[in-house]
Amino acid sequence: MSRNKKISPPLGFLFAGISAGIKKNQEKDLGLIHSLKPANAVGVFTQNRFLASPVIISRERLKKSRSRARAILVNSGNANCGLGERGIKDALQISRRLEKELGLKAEQILLASTGVIGEPLPVKRICQVIPKLKDLLRENGFRDFAQAILTTDTRKKIAFRQIQIQNSQIRILGIAKGAGMIQPELATMLGFILTDAQVLAQDLKKLLKEKVQESFNRITVDGDTSTNDTVFALANGAGGLKLKPEEKGWQEFARAFGEVCWELAEMIAQDGEGASRWFYVLVKGAGSKRDAEKIARKIANSPLVKTAIYARDPNWGRILASAGGAGVKFDSKKVQLYLEAGSGKAKLIVFEDGAVAKNYLSVGEKKAKKILSQSGFKIVLDLNQGGESFEILTCDLTEKYVKINAEYRS
Amino acid sequence: MSRNKKISPPLGFLFAGISAGIKKNQEKDLGLIHSLKPANAVGVFTQNRFLASPVIISRERLKKSRSRARAILVNSGNANCGLGERGIKDALQISRRLEKELGLKAEQILLASTGVIGEPLPVKRICQVIPKLKDLLRENGFRDFAQAILTTDTRKKIAFRQIQIQNSQIRILGIAKGAGMIQPELATMLGFILTDAQVLAQDLKKLLKEKVQESFNRITVDGDTSTNDTVFALANGAGGLKLKPEEKGWQEFARAFGEVCWELAEMIAQDGEGASRWFYVLVKGAGSKRDAEKIARKIANSPLVKTAIYARDPNWGRILASAGGAGVKFDSKKVQLYLEAGSGKAKLIVFEDGAVAKNYLSVGEKKAKKILSQSGFKIVLDLNQGGESFEILTCDLTEKYVKINAEYRS
Repeated sequence: MSRNKKISPPLGFLFAGISAGIKKNQEKDLGLIHSLKPANAVGVFTQNRFLASPVIISRERLKKSRSRARAILVNSGNANCGLGERGIKDALQISRRLEKELGLKAEQILLASTGVIGEPLPVKRICQVIPKLKDLLRENGFRDFAQAILTTDTRKKIAFRQIQIQNSQIRILGIAKGAGMIQPELATMLGFILTDAQVLAQDLKKLLKEKVQESFNRITVDGDTSTNDTVFALANGAGGLKLKPEEKGWQEFARAFGEVCWELAEMIAQDGEGASRWFYVLVKGAGSKRDAEKIARKIANSPLVKTAIYARDPNWGRILASAGGAGVKFDSKKVQLYLEAGSGKAKLIVFEDGAVAKNYLSVGEKKAKKILSQSGFKIVLDLNQGGESFEILTCDLTEKYVKINAEYRS
Repeated sequence: MSRNKKISPPLGFLFAGISAGIKKNQEKDLGLIHSLKPANAVGVFTQNRFLASPVIISRERLKKSRSRARAILVNSGNANCGLGERGIKDALQISRRLEKELGLKAEQILLASTGVIGEPLPVKRICQVIPKLKDLLRENGFRDFAQAILTTDTRKKIAFRQIQIQNSQIRILGIAKGAGMIQPELATMLGFILTDAQVLAQDLKKLLKEKVQESFNRITVDGDTSTNDTVFALANGAGGLKLKPEEKGWQEFARAFGEVCWELAEMIAQDGEGASRWFYVLVKGAGSKRDAEKIARKIANSPLVKTAIYARDPNWGRILASAGGAGVKFDSKKVQLYLEAGSGKAKLIVFEDGAVAKNYLSVGEKKAKKILSQSGFKIVLDLNQGGESFEILTCDLTEKYVKINAEYRS
């Protein structure tokens, strides 16, 4: 159950990644996952009103196939979004090439794209490399796949758990991408959770939704959301073990599945575009979960808070101002603000009883600077007027973020 | 009625600005407005749940004085916020010094502060310079006052209208500060609108609220809101003319008053922290004004849109993605997106009928780059599903914004 360093990918899955010339400099930009036997497959998609072509297509295919899939084709460098019918046509043409190559039906192939919106895919070039991509498929190709789906990410994001249930080994492999546009409903992130356990699609769907809510939807980089976000979960049963909720082993499986999701989510927030440090914002004592979430997101997305953190400046006034401007009614006199170091031991009270805490100005600020200097600290705002809470993981805002996003297409 | 270049301040008002050593480098940081006769005075204040001491005090004083005031004392460099009872005590002590100096009652003095939150005011130093500040009071001191209230602003913000009504001259002078934290409910901005017309407090209040809604609440720099925002309007009647709604001259007066507010609001957005260009976002064809506003604010505050504009990159996918993630339901196929140059002549359609516009990819993008290269352009998103609209003025996001806000306290 512990974090496994060595990754043995789930049985029955093959992976590959290659350059199709979508990105510059021969970088890998086309990835493929192939399940040797039909897998139960479910997905959760962006809530954005504008949907990229692969999102539209994959959603339809999951319906048509009754949640069964054999392959996932992913490209980076181009979102295939905002192109109307042409975007759909292009994606279908690429899919057809893969159907032929793998001998699959259209609805057995899921698609995902990430990158620039509004530019047509280089369909011909992609189709040309698909045979080679197929030839590259192998069990240990998951690192190539993880590489091929990245955009502004600085590192691959892979999480793995192996658990033993009733003398059987179950493997859960998660691969994700995402570094910006990360909020609130799965924003330009792609996630792929694969297991060789045998799980009914309906159970897998429920599990995925629940765990996505507790992981990918609890991180934010810049408050923007994407047209392409997708998390797929595939269970191909190649490991032989059947798992059902309420039955033996499910608890362990669900926990490991959730850990894989959370580990990937953490990797995304920690790889936030241009970020120098990452931190948690916890709002507690709220009248409703919605209120807690609203305030937590407001603080976590505040450019003023994020630039202060970047500067290791405990400018707590910005935290309060941001909380106070979240559109939630609360009594500011009851609020307590404190900082927790990543170690979880130090708790530094900054503000309480309507004023800066005693001793904070004389000795606290120095301590605060120290806490803010390392990743993993927690900003805790206790409203003290209810029992609900919400925690979110985010990162600071640096000149590098601006540079990355200003130069994204150049 | 036209924009007057030469400013002759409203009769019966004196102004001064001085350095009290709150800011570094002997910069002016304490400003005073003095009305020779009691003025009808009204204010609108931040909606933030955390209120700075001067906001709390001024609001009470306007009630106690029944909307009459003789002076406004403003300091920059320190927000006097988050200090609980001490903040109130400090402000009252400073006020008492001024009461004595000008021979006024406490409730005749209004207060405003802007700057860092959570650090106590240097009360002694401020009290020490108040006699000198009083000696500096003069009709033409408004530029010193405008200078003394600035924080990260790069320039003074002064707007002026002189209108003739029934052979009488009426002057309206507006002075403001603000460059960041500008949204949505008057965020760290201070505004002072002074007129020598005679206007009942209740009429002035209604007018101020309406015009603030159409000006200061229609700009955004970074989506953050402040604990200190205040706009005061004072009408001292020194010009002799009495104005009432529905009566002769009111229309012209209200229009000029609105123009002064809007001109100040524009100056604030155009002086957005680190901004290289400013632009408008107009959302029209929405089912409700609230929906239009939500989407317009989401686009105008999107770091990804703002960094793209900074790079002169017509990355319109980010505009759509941001609109689609605003939490408003709409049919994305009906949406039209176009750009208007500052001149208002060119209209470049970017996206319609669910796809990038014809010819955009071949020739439009070049034109779009050109439009984005100059300030004053407009991003128009027509939802085509209703009759409501909302327009907002904002600026781009640059490395300089991060630098300014990271180094704010150092």
